[in-house]
Amino acid sequence: MSLKQFIDDHLPKLEEVLYDLVRNIKAPAQLKESMLYSLEAGGKRIRPLFVLAVCDLFHNNKKNEAYIVGAAVEMIHTYSLIHDDLPSMDDDEMRRGKPTNHVIFGDALATLAGDALNTLSFGVLARMESVTSEKKVELINLLSIAAGAEGMVGGQVLDIDGESRTLSLPELENVHVNKTGALLRFSIESGAILSDATVQERSALVEYAHHIGLAFQIQDDILDIVGTTEELGKTAGKDIESHKSTYPALLTLEGAKQKLEEHYELAITALRKIDKNTTILEEFAQYIVKRHN
Amino acid sequence: MSLKQFIDDHLPKLEEVLYDLVRNIKAPAQLKESMLYSLEAGGKRIRPLFVLAVCDLFHNNKKNEAYIVGAAVEMIHTYSLIHDDLPSMDDDEMRRGKPTNHVIFGDALATLAGDALNTLSFGVLARMESVTSEKKVELINLLSIAAGAEGMVGGQVLDIDGESRTLSLPELENVHVNKTGALLRFSIESGAILSDATVQERSALVEYAHHIGLAFQIQDDILDIVGTTEELGKTAGKDIESHKSTYPALLTLEGAKQKLEEHYELAITALRKIDKNTTILEEFAQYIVKRHN
Repeated sequence: MSLKQFIDDHLPKLEEVLYDLVRNIKAPAQLKESMLYSLEAGGKRIRPLFVLAVCDLFHNNKKNEAYIVGAAVEMIHTYSLIHDDLPSMDDDEMRRGKPTNHVIFGDALATLAGDALNTLSFGVLARMESVTSEKKVELINLLSIAAGAEGMVGGQVLDIDGESRTLSLPELENVHVNKTGALLRFSIESGAILSDATVQERSALVEYAHHIGLAFQIQDDILDIVGTTEELGKTAGKDIESHKSTYPALLTLEGAKQKLEEHYELAITALRKIDKNTTILEEFAQYIVKRHN
Repeated sequence: MSLKQFIDDHLPKLEEVLYDLVRNIKAPAQLKESMLYSLEAGGKRIRPLFVLAVCDLFHNNKKNEAYIVGAAVEMIHTYSLIHDDLPSMDDDEMRRGKPTNHVIFGDALATLAGDALNTLSFGVLARMESVTSEKKVELINLLSIAAGAEGMVGGQVLDIDGESRTLSLPELENVHVNKTGALLRFSIESGAILSDATVQERSALVEYAHHIGLAFQIQDDILDIVGTTEELGKTAGKDIESHKSTYPALLTLEGAKQKLEEHYELAITALRKIDKNTTILEEFAQYIVKRHN
C-alpha cells in the first residue's frame, strides 16, 4: 500500500472522530465553534497519521483507539497553533490559508479555546474504551511530558528566547527537539504502546521519530525561504525578515538541505531494525523531506 | 481540631509539594520562574485544602497522594488566573497584592506558563505512586471535565458573554456552577475517590460542594462591594464599574446575603448525611461565607 492510499483510507474517519469528540461535549456554542474552527481548518494531520501508521505496522486492529489517541495529539497541536498565532505571541493573521482563530473569535475566546483543547486531550485519553487503565496512564503521562514545559511549551519558550539572539546549532536543535520533536515522538511512541511493541521495536521507532522531527523542522525552515505564501498557506519569508535562528541561517541553504538528507537517512536506518514491512513509515519520511507546505 | 489548626498543619507541606512538582521538571529557567511566580503568590489554597479535608474526614492516611491531587488542582486554578489576568481577557495588573504574571514576564511567557501548568496537572496525577491506575484514570477524567470546556473554561466563556448583557439568576448560577463550582467540586470529589467513600457519602459531599461553590461566588460578589482593594489584594468595585451581572446586582446586597446564608445552610445539611465527624468541613463552610478576602 502506498502512503497516499493509506492517508485516503484513514483521513476521513480520523477527522470524523476528531470533530465528534468536540461536537459531543456540553459547552457554550461559541466555545465549541472556536475549537472546531481551528480543528477543521485542515492541516496535514501528520501526528495522528503517525499514530495510525505505527499501529498499522503492527497489524493492530484496535483502530478506534488509534484514532482517539491521534485526535488527542491533534488537539494539542491545534491549541499550540491557536496560542502561537495570538498577537502577544507570533501575531499571525493567516494559517492554513484561513484567518487565524483570534481574527475570527477575538483574543479572549481564542485563548480559552486553546486552553479547552489542551485540557480535553487528556480527557479523551482517559475515556478510551478497550484500553487498559495502565496504558491510559502511560499515554497520559507521556503526552503531558511531550506537550508541557519539558517538551513543546518549553521549546516554544526557547524559540522566543532565540528570536533576540543567534543560537548555536546545538541550541537550535534543542529548540526543535522540544518544540516540534516531542509531540511527533509521542505520536509514534503512542502507536507502539497501543500495539504492544517490544522494547527494541519501540526504541527503534523513537530513534526514527527523533530524526523525522528534526527533518520536519529543517524542511519547514527551508520552505520559509524557497516556498511562496500561497503554497504555504501562511506568510513566507517571515524567518529572514525577523532575523530568526534557522538551519539555513546557520548552515546556508545548501548546508540545511544536506542536514535534512542526513536525518532522512538516519530515520530510514532506524526502521531497518524493525523486522516488519515499514513501507508506509519510509514513505512518510520521504514525504516529510519533499513536501512543499 | 479547628480549621485554623488543620490549615496550619497542612499548608506548609502542601506548598512544598506544589513547588517541588514544578522545581523538579527539566524546563527553561524563565518558564519555571514564571510558573512558580504565580504558584508562590499565595492565595487561600482552598481547593487543595478541600482535598485534604475530605481525606481527613475518612482518616485516609495516604496523605502524600492528597497533597499531589491538591497540587494538581492548584495548578489548574493558577493557570486560569494567569490567563484571566491577560490584557486580552480581564486585563488585571494586580493579583493577591502582587503584579500579575504578564506584568512581570510579558504576555507571551504568561500565556505559555499557564499552558504548561494546565498540562502539568494531568502529568502529576498520572505519576502518583500507590494509587491504582483505575483511580488515576477516574481522577484525570473528572479533572479534564471540571477544568475544560464543560466546566471552568466553559464558565469563563459564559462569564465573558455575561459582560455584554444582564444575565437572569439561573444564567448567573450556571456561570458560577461552571466557572468556580466545577473545580471546587472536583477538589471535594477527588478526596472522596482517594478515600474510597461510599456512593452515599460521595453524593452528600458533591451536594455540599455545589452549595459551597455558589456560596463562595456570592461572597466574592459581596466582597467586591463591601471590601477594600487593600483587603482583597485586587481592585475592589470592579464589578459595579463594569456593570457586570452579579448576585448583589440582581438581588440587592441584602438579597445576596440571604442567598449566601441559604447555600451555607444547605451545605451544612448535606454534611449531616455523613456519619462522621464533619467539623472541619463545617468550619470550612463558615469560613467561606465569613471571609474578608
